[in-house]
Parts: sequence; structure tokens; C-alpha cells
Amino acid sequence: MITPALLAEFSTFLGKENVFTDPADRVTYSYDAAVLAPVIPALVLRPTSGEALGKAVRLCNENRIPLTVRGAGTNLSGGTIPKENGAVLLTNGLNRILEINEADMFAVVQPGVITAGLAAAVEKKGLFYPPDPGSQSVSTLGGNVAENAGGLRGLKYGVTRDYVMGIQFFDVNGELIKTGSKTVKCATGYNLAGLLVGSEGTLGVFNEITLKLIPPPAHRKAMMAVFDDINKASETVAAIIANRIIPATLEFLDSFTIRAVEDYSHAGLPVNAAAMLLIEVDGHPAQVEEDAHKVETLCRTLGASSIRVAQDDAERDRVWSARRSALSALAKLKPTVILEDATVPRSKIPDMVRAIQEISSEYGLPIGTFGHAGDGNLHPTILTDRRNRQEWVRVEKAIEAIFDRALALGGTLSGEHGTGIAKSCYLEKETSPATIIYSKRIKSALDPHNILNPGKIIG
Amino acid sequence: MITPALLAEFSTFLGKENVFTDPADRVTYSYDAAVLAPVIPALVLRPTSGEALGKAVRLCNENRIPLTVRGAGTNLSGGTIPKENGAVLLTNGLNRILEINEADMFAVVQPGVITAGLAAAVEKKGLFYPPDPGSQSVSTLGGNVAENAGGLRGLKYGVTRDYVMGIQFFDVNGELIKTGSKTVKCATGYNLAGLLVGSEGTLGVFNEITLKLIPPPAHRKAMMAVFDDINKASETVAAIIANRIIPATLEFLDSFTIRAVEDYSHAGLPVNAAAMLLIEVDGHPAQVEEDAHKVETLCRTLGASSIRVAQDDAERDRVWSARRSALSALAKLKPTVILEDATVPRSKIPDMVRAIQEISSEYGLPIGTFGHAGDGNLHPTILTDRRNRQEWVRVEKAIEAIFDRALALGGTLSGEHGTGIAKSCYLEKETSPATIIYSKRIKSALDPHNILNPGKIIG
Repeated sequence: MITPALLAEFSTFLGKENVFTDPADRVTYSYDAAVLAPVIPALVLRPTSGEALGKAVRLCNENRIPLTVRGAGTNLSGGTIPKENGAVLLTNGLNRILEINEADMFAVVQPGVITAGLAAAVEKKGLFYPPDPGSQSVSTLGGNVAENAGGLRGLKYGVTRDYVMGIQFFDVNGELIKTGSKTVKCATGYNLAGLLVGSEGTLGVFNEITLKLIPPPAHRKAMMAVFDDINKASETVAAIIANRIIPATLEFLDSFTIRAVEDYSHAGLPVNAAAMLLIEVDGHPAQVEEDAHKVETLCRTLGASSIRVAQDDAERDRVWSARRSALSALAKLKPTVILEDATVPRSKIPDMVRAIQEISSEYGLPIGTFGHAGDGNLHPTILTDRRNRQEWVRVEKAIEAIFDRALALGGTLSGEHGTGIAKSCYLEKETSPATIIYSKRIKSALDPHNILNPGKIIG
Repeated sequence: MITPALLAEFSTFLGKENVFTDPADRVTYSYDAAVLAPVIPALVLRPTSGEALGKAVRLCNENRIPLTVRGAGTNLSGGTIPKENGAVLLTNGLNRILEINEADMFAVVQPGVITAGLAAAVEKKGLFYPPDPGSQSVSTLGGNVAENAGGLRGLKYGVTRDYVMGIQFFDVNGELIKTGSKTVKCATGYNLAGLLVGSEGTLGVFNEITLKLIPPPAHRKAMMAVFDDINKASETVAAIIANRIIPATLEFLDSFTIRAVEDYSHAGLPVNAAAMLLIEVDGHPAQVEEDAHKVETLCRTLGASSIRVAQDDAERDRVWSARRSALSALAKLKPTVILEDATVPRSKIPDMVRAIQEISSEYGLPIGTFGHAGDGNLHPTILTDRRNRQEWVRVEKAIEAIFDRALALGGTLSGEHGTGIAKSCYLEKETSPATIIYSKRIKSALDPHNILNPGKIIG
């Protein structure tokens, strides 16, 4: 129960100005980017120091207040939807880059640091933080780690998990847990950092995160390949990988998405194309030339109707920024937009693209498909209106059909958006009842009163 | 209690020939490569199918028989030393490569597959499995994953953890748990695979492991740089990294190790050198030429007395195989050899090399230092005789001093050998009491009767 006395206790260490109970404040943090019913929390907390963060966690646990930590709320699986008797804990008061170590190539950050902010800060020092989720300009690193965020560069550079060297976090009792290291190798103790990555705030609350940095690629080349047949485009994706070329990015957009993006961004995309690929290769200049040549040849051989190499950084940035606007562009077309991220082994991309087209016709729903085809991670995006109940039934069936096809192709429910609330009911399809029981044992042992973001991942 | 009835039950599904109780068999599996007292198990089991493996785990749990899974027993921290009332479970009957998927670049293996065997099998198909622990010619992939094994290529290519895409394992009840995926991105459910990597057989028993493969580097160049001053060599290591060159391997050997290795291998190493570096750069030929040139210049600038580029694969292989024999070479010199792997951020390598020299003089003990300097992972190797009790007291103090210095430099107790029994008592130095309690909560929840390799990691 949230009593005035308890609010006063939170205020003693958070400051009165960082404890919010006004309806307007609470409504603001009732939803995230997933298509799910909002839940208005009872309380919003905003710690501005690690010490206050730990105390807030402990006090929530002692008073059995469900606690949902929220970065920018950009996640797409309902991971930051709170409980109505619960608290939302904002990390935007914990937004300092604590260290950028150039000699040993790592950064230490508080959880509320904006992803693109870190990327820019390390770039100034001649270093590179590769993970680039679509929401990077607003998303936080704490959120990225909690969701194991992916992005456009996953194919060559991996995802957030691959850059987490260590995490300091508070357990549910407010005790500080240290895991990982500032060394590139660490085999000391359990890999708790590995467990915490992608745990969606259910096992602990991040205080400091140590992230690996790498030298930036010396050179890069971006290309746009246009196809008059969607299957030719998806087969080209599989062929590039099969030829052992690993582009930094290899993005796919179907005609529906191309037109929506062009309407939105006016970047000069080929609106009459059936599909297009955006490809960027990077590395040593000689490697880049060779890879670019091979990619171009493959595109032509497999039937691209045109290929354009970006002439300068401005052209490249214009095209990439158009691609990054895909979700916003599609979201303008209909009241409800559902962005899925079922992922398949890369060679199955042609099958998955065909499956999505079939599902679109079968359920009579417009589905725009784009995404990180190079790593098998497509984003079929269903355009609908949740208020249309009849259509919504078809939408739910279509989502399940997408999951079923992805799993049948050896894939996974989520490549990068996480399980959250949205996919927890499908988890058993991919794993096994015993896997969920095993996961619940961990959760119960670490959070016996089920305070830490209850209901996420394992329901 | 291990009764004749229970042995008969194990025999029903393992086959009588795979249940061992003879003293000779039991003694064989009483020790590993760590300098620790052997413990003779009561029973040795050898399943030859996944089904039998799951049943064996369940039966051990039901009968409260401590179970230590053993690959090749090459680990250096006592992770495979069993309990005297316990069973050792051998994985050498589970040694099949189940799939090498060329299109999607992954392999699925049983836990008993030999590391070098997989590496050779994927090489034949034009692919590359980079992790190369020193014991790769005999070590198993199950053991590598359980210990999060490192190796010479950690600097550029990472360690075993970076190649584990998914694990199917049995929980203590013999139920099959599925985690991870065959896709390059997976954010479904908890990252149980991440938790299981490096958990030293304490949280589950591996049935199948899915490992990431990558395209092999197109070209490589190996060099040997010789120094007449150990500090010059260690400063060159730090300078190479600071100049943003990431060699595939960057190995350090001090004079003591060079002489021992040369006596053992007759590979033509410079026996009068104070230290040497073995450096290999790989990648696109143009990149290799550039990096090799930069490395050579740095070596000369920082005082290398000579640099030799391997003229062909035979010369390269001779030198690397000499390096790989370092532990065996040192082990010939004294009855007891203790190989540590405390690891520091890479810029601290010069400090750590000096610290080890000081500790060697302070405690009057010969310490040969070699290892993966490029990733901060040195192997100070203490030569002693455990029967000399007076000296052993100094050895224990020297080990503790090495750990303390590594931690003071921002490092970790273990870069790649794991915690096991040998380092569990030091774990609190690096982490915190709360971290150990958190770890114990996980262990108790997943293994309530403490059957799975008891006593490892968290004591």
C-alpha cells in the first residue's frame, strides 16, 4: 500500500521533486511502444544517484510495490507497462557517462544514458559502439541491455549482449551485485551479466553498465539495389550470406514499406519497386571495394533492376535515415501498427518473405515487411485498427501464424524486441514447459515477492 | 547411497559396460589439471545417448548422488574434481557433430566432441570456429562451454561464450531445457544459455550445443619480436592495442618460459632474449599488410632487438606449436606447476608483468610468465613442489598476491580457467558478499539437493 508516510520516506532520499503521484504524470508512464492496453501506475520515482536507486528498490520490495524500471519506453513488447498498484522508476536522472577508457576500449555508463549519446561521445574519441536499435536517438542503454536490443548492424557487429562486459546492479533487497569485468576475458563466478541481459527488469535493477568499444571501420560503402520481384530480393539476401560476405547492414524493404517511407521522408526511394535492399559494407578500403563489387555482381545476377552506390555521406545518411523512419511512416497509415520481429536462419529469408505474403492474403490484412534481412530478422508490420473487433481477431490469428511459420523454419519468436507481455504466452511454443519452470525457479529465488517488473517474459 | 540395485538401474539404460565401479576406473577420474588433492568418486557413468544422459541425471538427483560431468578433464581450476560419494559422468560417448550448417553458419554438437575435431570439420567446409584453448586437441566443447574457455585468439575473436548460440540441457530432474536459437539474433525468454556458459556443470547438464561459425580470414601473417628487456615487450603490447590494431593473437613469453619451451620443442626460439612476442594479424590481404607493417614499426620503435616474419605455414605452425607447449615445457621442470590466469585491462600489462617479477623475488619462487598478453590474460606459472610444505606456504601467499595485484589494476581473478574449487575462496575479493548470496540463490533454486557438481564456483 502506498501511504502518505511511504511517499514521505521515498522523498527523504529521492527529493520531493522526484516522487510523482499526479494523474498526468502517472498516465505519461502507463504505456510503451507495444500495442497493449495502458496501465496507470500508482507512483513514479526518479532517483538521481545510485545510492537513491538502491534505496528505492529496497523500499519497494519491503512494501511489496511492483517496480517497473523505464528508460525511454520505446520497447515493443510491453516490457515497460507497469502494474496499477505499482511504481514506475525513471532512469533519466541517472544519465551520466562515467568513463570512456580509450586505452582499454570500454565505457562505463549509468542506465539512463541515451544510446546515440554514447555512440557520439565515443566517436569523438575515435571509437565505435555498434549496437544501433531503431530508437537509438531516444532509447537508453539501460533499456537496451534489459531488452538485449538489436539494430541494423547486428549482422556483422552483433547485438547489445555482445557489448556488455559487466553490470553492477541492485538485487531486490537493494544490495549491490557485481558481475563481469573491465577485462576482455572474464571467467570469474557465474555469468550473471549474461543472465541479466534481456531479463527485462525482472531480476535486478542496473546501476552501472560497462560496455565494450571497438575501433571504427576505416571505410564504408552504401548501396541500394532495386528489384521488380520480391522473391528476387529475398534470394539475393540469402545469396550474399551464402557467399560469405558479411555486410555491416543488409536491410530489406517491400513495396508497401518503400511507398510509405517515401511519402514520409521524400528521400528519393524507388516507389515503383517490388522490393529493395539497402546494403552497407565496411572495413579496410580494399576489403570494402572487393565486397561491394561482389555484392553488386550478386545483385545483378539475381535480377536487380538497378543498383545505386551512395555518392557521398549525405546521400548515404539520407537513405539510412529514411529506412530508420519505416515504423513512423507505416504508423501514419492506420490507427494501430503492430511491428513483429520473428526471426529465421538467414537462408530461410525467402521462405519467410513468402510466408508473410501468404498470411497477409489469408487474413486480408495489409502487412508491410522490412527489416534486418541479413540476420534473418524481418519486421512484418500489420496495419490495423484495434477498435475494429472483427479485424482484431484476424490480426491475432495472423500474428500467431507468423510465429508458427518462423518456428517451423527453425527461427525464434523475437530477434530483438524481447518477450515482455506481448509474447510471453507464446514462449512455450518455442521452448518447453520445463524451460518455463526452470526460468520461474530463477525468478522466484531472486525476487520472492515478485516485485521486479512482474508478468514479463514468463507471465 | 550407491547400492547394487541402483547400479543395476543405471545399467538398464546405460548398458552394463558403461557403469564403472572398479578402483582403477575411479582413480582415473579423480583429478584434473588443477593442482588440488584428487578425490576418488564412487561411480563412473558413460551415457551414449541424450536420452540415457537425461535419465542418468534424474537418477543421480533422486538418489542424492553428487554428479560431476567430465569432458577431457583439462580444466585448471578443479572444476572436474568429483565428490567421494559421487559419480563422474563421462561425455566421451556423446561425441557426434550433429550438424554443420554451411548456409546459416552454425554447428550443432554433442558435449563430448573434441574442440580441434570440430575446428577441423568446419575448416573442410570453408568455415571457422575460432575459440582455441591451449588444450584444444583433447578438450571437449561441453567442457569449453562449461568453463567458458578462452584461448590464443580471444583478443580479436572472443571466447567460447561469444560462439554459443543455444544450449539444450537437462535440469537436475532430467527435464530438457531449450535456450537460445539457430538464428543470429534471439531475444526470446531469459538468456539461460548465457547463464549456463561458465557455470561449470552446477546448473544443468548439456545435451546439445549450437555454436556460431564464421568465414575464415582470407590471409594471415605471423611475426616473432624479440626483446632484451621484458618491460619493452610488455609496453609494446599496450602500444599495439592503443594504436587500434587488433591482432588475431598477441602472445607474450618471458625469458624463463622461452628457455623452457626451446628445451622442450627445439623450435628455434631466441634463448637469450629477455622476452618475446608472437603476433599474428589476419583478415583481408591489404589489411594484413598494413597491420603487419604498423606492428613491425611499433616493435622497432619500442626497442625490439629483432623481428622475424614467418616465411611459410610450416615456420608459423612450428612457432605456434612451440607456444602451445609452454605449459608442458614448464611442467617438466618441477614436480608441481601452478598456472594462473589473473587478467588485467590491456593497458595494465606492463604493470602486471612488473608485479609478477616483484612477487617472484619477494617469495623466492620461480615464476614463468607467458600468455595472451593482447587481451590482458597472462599466465604466471609458479614452479614448485607441493611436498615442500615450507615452500607451499610461500606459494599460497604468492598466488594471493597475484590476485590482489590484478584486482588492484582493475582486473579479474580468472580470464579463462574458471573459478572451480581453486578460486572460489577468492571470489568475494572481486565481487561482494551480496553477489555470492545472489549466485547461491540461483544455485539452490535450480539444484535444491546440491547434486550438480557441488562445491564449484560458489564453494
